[in-house]
Amino acid sequence: MVRSLTVAYRGTDYAGWQRQSNATTVQQRLEEALGAFLNQNVKVVGAGRTDAGVHARGQVVHVVGDPRDPNRSTGGDLPDTAFVHGTNRHLPPDIRVLGASRMAEGFHARKSALSKIYTYRVIPTRVLSPLDSMFAAAVDPRVRAEPMKEAIVGLVGRHDFTAFALAGGTHSDPHRSILRAQLRTSGAGHLIFEFEGDGFLRGMVRSLVGTLLEVGLGKRTPQEFGELLAGSPRSEAGPTAPPQGLVLERVFYPSGTAE
Amino acid sequence: MVRSLTVAYRGTDYAGWQRQSNATTVQQRLEEALGAFLNQNVKVVGAGRTDAGVHARGQVVHVVGDPRDPNRSTGGDLPDTAFVHGTNRHLPPDIRVLGASRMAEGFHARKSALSKIYTYRVIPTRVLSPLDSMFAAAVDPRVRAEPMKEAIVGLVGRHDFTAFALAGGTHSDPHRSILRAQLRTSGAGHLIFEFEGDGFLRGMVRSLVGTLLEVGLGKRTPQEFGELLAGSPRSEAGPTAPPQGLVLERVFYPSGTAE
Repeated sequence: MVRSLTVAYRGTDYAGWQRQSNATTVQQRLEEALGAFLNQNVKVVGAGRTDAGVHARGQVVHVVGDPRDPNRSTGGDLPDTAFVHGTNRHLPPDIRVLGASRMAEGFHARKSALSKIYTYRVIPTRVLSPLDSMFAAAVDPRVRAEPMKEAIVGLVGRHDFTAFALAGGTHSDPHRSILRAQLRTSGAGHLIFEFEGDGFLRGMVRSLVGTLLEVGLGKRTPQEFGELLAGSPRSEAGPTAPPQGLVLERVFYPSGTAE
Repeated sequence: MVRSLTVAYRGTDYAGWQRQSNATTVQQRLEEALGAFLNQNVKVVGAGRTDAGVHARGQVVHVVGDPRDPNRSTGGDLPDTAFVHGTNRHLPPDIRVLGASRMAEGFHARKSALSKIYTYRVIPTRVLSPLDSMFAAAVDPRVRAEPMKEAIVGLVGRHDFTAFALAGGTHSDPHRSILRAQLRTSGAGHLIFEFEGDGFLRGMVRSLVGTLLEVGLGKRTPQEFGELLAGSPRSEAGPTAPPQGLVLERVFYPSGTAE
């Protein structure tokens, strides 16, 4: 049995998901809380390595205990709800375990994932309200949704995303498959980009959004955007949109993964 | 000419709107920012005195300058957009001036107001996501919207709200008129209470919500809720809901108030 957890967090005050030696990360805080709750040395593996300032509504992790007795050392006998509430008692208010599940042996939060959904929220305004600014980026209100909608449909399929990978990132293969890509407008006029993919290069969603916004502002055509998807260098694409608009929404696994 | 400003803020880190000697408030931060921008001693009067932790999406204030030359001392010659951006440069990120207008002589942000709208957001869940917890309160997921909808319609009209006033508050007249009161459910299943009234006693919206939630959980009937609106003592009503769910949304003024 492997325990998986669904975790939500505000990334605002963290240097991202992944543990670092010199900055506080979400993974660190979660491992500390699990350690305090279970009175064990516990590690977790997350499905998505969100960057500094990026949020998660549905990050998924699996819990890794002592290899000599992984089941017992990760609280194998505890009911899922006790596991959730026990861990939350040791977490800061900006991180919460929303649920726990028992998965079949061999489950791995990242390697078993079929796809992930990220959203990015943009608000066309000159002055961003403080009620929105923690979870959205502002854009010039002259932005137009139509050309962005025209460009975004071209994302679906398998492409070489070199143009949208963080400079300096080391990806052996820059190809990724996008299963779904859409732009919708909320009742309040917010623009919400949604991407489902089998994987994402580092910085990929934010540079896709930064480049799509240039399409929306008439600085590029939808056709020019499409031409970037065949392995253009990073310098050809637009800027990286700021982290606070990005949310890891959900991770999908094959049916039958749960125990 | 009197300058009015529309101001939005996250109340999370403030001891409320109104200036206090021993705690940081939104009014203080705004007066400091205006003072730094205009290089004058400037005071503001707000339409609503939001409590500690309560947010505003559309607080309205008027700017009070030096009585010997109120026009010049409040930047009377500056265009509204310059006034907005100049003030925002001196504000922390959790407070923003969204707009400025020139109002007719005699305009008073609180006394000229016809009505105000407050909303309160509640999420039926055992574990509140950190992406929601700054702007919503959690409630037992067994809560039912129907009895609350039945109770809330009875609020419209003029009532004695003694049962819903903060204990110790000094209100000469506990009557207030509610123009509109409704409960709607968002797509995500959030419960959003909305109240428009000609005025609100201190703590009134939060104790209305706390008592309505008792109706939703079957602890009171809609009829019993209605009976509280005829001057029952505070002890008869339910608890005060926590501040983070409450937002001052909008303030209405008579048409023709703008210059």
